Amino acid sequence: MQISGRNKITGTVTNVNPGTVNSEVEIETPGGDKIVGMITKSSQESMKITEGEQITALIKASSVMFIKE
Amino acid sequence: MQISGRNKITGTVTNVNPGTVNSEVEIETPGGDKIVGMITKSSQESMKITEGEQITALIKASSVMFIKE
Amino acid sequence: MQISGRNKITGTVTNVNPGTVNSEVEIETPGGDKIVGMITKSSQESMKITEGEQITALIKASSVMFIKE
Amino acid sequence: MQISGRNKITGTVTNVNPGTVNSEVEIETPGGDKIVGMITKSSQESMKITEGEQITALIKASSVMFIKE
Amino acid sequence: MQISGRNKITGTVTNVNPGTVNSEVEIETPGGDKIVGMITKSSQESMKITEGEQITALIKASSVMFIKE
Amino acid sequence: MQISGRNKITGTVTNVNPGTVNSEVEIETPGGDKIVGMITKSSQESMKITEGEQITALIKASSVMFIKE
Repeated sequence: MQISGRNKITGTVTNVNPGTVNSEVEIETPGGDKIVGMITKSSQESMKITEGEQITALIKASSVMFIKE
Repeated sequence: MQISGRNKITGTVTNVNPGTVNSEVEIETPGGDKIVGMITKSSQESMKITEGEQITALIKASSVMFIKE
Repeated sequence: MQISGRNKITGTVTNVNPGTVNSEVEIETPGGDKIVGMITKSSQESMKITEGEQITALIKASSVMFIKE
Repeated sequence: MQISGRNKITGTVTNVNPGTVNSEVEIETPGGDKIVGMITKSSQESMKITEGEQITALIKASSVMFIKE
Repeated sequence: MQISGRNKITGTVTNVNPGTVNSEVEIETPGGDKIVGMITKSSQESMKITEGEQITALIKASSVMFIKE
Repeated sequence: MQISGRNKITGTVTNVNPGTVNSEVEIETPGGDKIVGMITKSSQESMKITEGEQITALIKASSVMFIKE
């Protein structure tokens, strides 16, 4: 399966914070970067996203901004 | 300065690919993850984003999906 | 493979319009709805997206607005 | 009224799931495709979005990714 | 017509910068704020967006971040 | 610090509406335009966003659509 989204970053789930209709999921990459995503609670539940497992963050290039100090 | 976007990931610029009104910028994190962003060409030029320098990808949590194998 | 994005709509590629760094891809669903996506030219090329083939539009729920007449 | 967003897909509201500040709204198109959107609860309430009525999903082309099996 | 997107800000078109598949459009609000949008070239052309006319920027609440000095 | 996002609009916080995992924040610009953003509750709390203070809405150009009457 190919997905056009250019950013696929794998990490370990370090936190799952369910809300009412959205859930916040955090992963930590092997390099130590944290990525937080807000997905629908229904997806978080149906995918049974659980702390400690490996999942991949999928981010469209058009959603990425850059900061320069 | 505080920015509400939850994902701030720093890396080295490994590629700058200017288009007509958009430019593709790629960074590599210390952990080896690549992040590609599509920003306006005007921002890429005014920020003088150049290969080899350190910049930070800024990604809103609501833009992040997750994939589970 | 599970993807948290809630909207997965399959259709036939009816148009591929490559730009400089982005490419516009249009699909038509069996029900006759057209969906246009703007993806990076690099993804369009690496995925060899071609007119006439079946692909699936992936859209995050947080990207969807609603209009009521 | 013209709106630049390229994807306008009409369907029947099949589910409204209000959260605290966001609400999940699902429509089904005549062709049988389901589209789920996450909008603010305030918009869902002010627009009185109700099951059974016809509304149109509005999606920017830059929010659409593609998957190829 | 009601649109769930919470931010509708009207201004005068001050610049139209067409690219290959995307076009950059800038408006200035009566209060002097500038808003730049990147829309598909096809929409910019079909809507005949022209300098000097009044149009309205439509922005989903989930696309807005905040900065605090 | 430079940020590639093209739209930076400053205003006074007129409302903060915390949800479970997201919070709705509204500002009013000097010109009288209202901008509503949906950010994670964690950011709203860590940034101590409070009614009456000045903050800046940051919006990517690719998130902006246009409406023409």
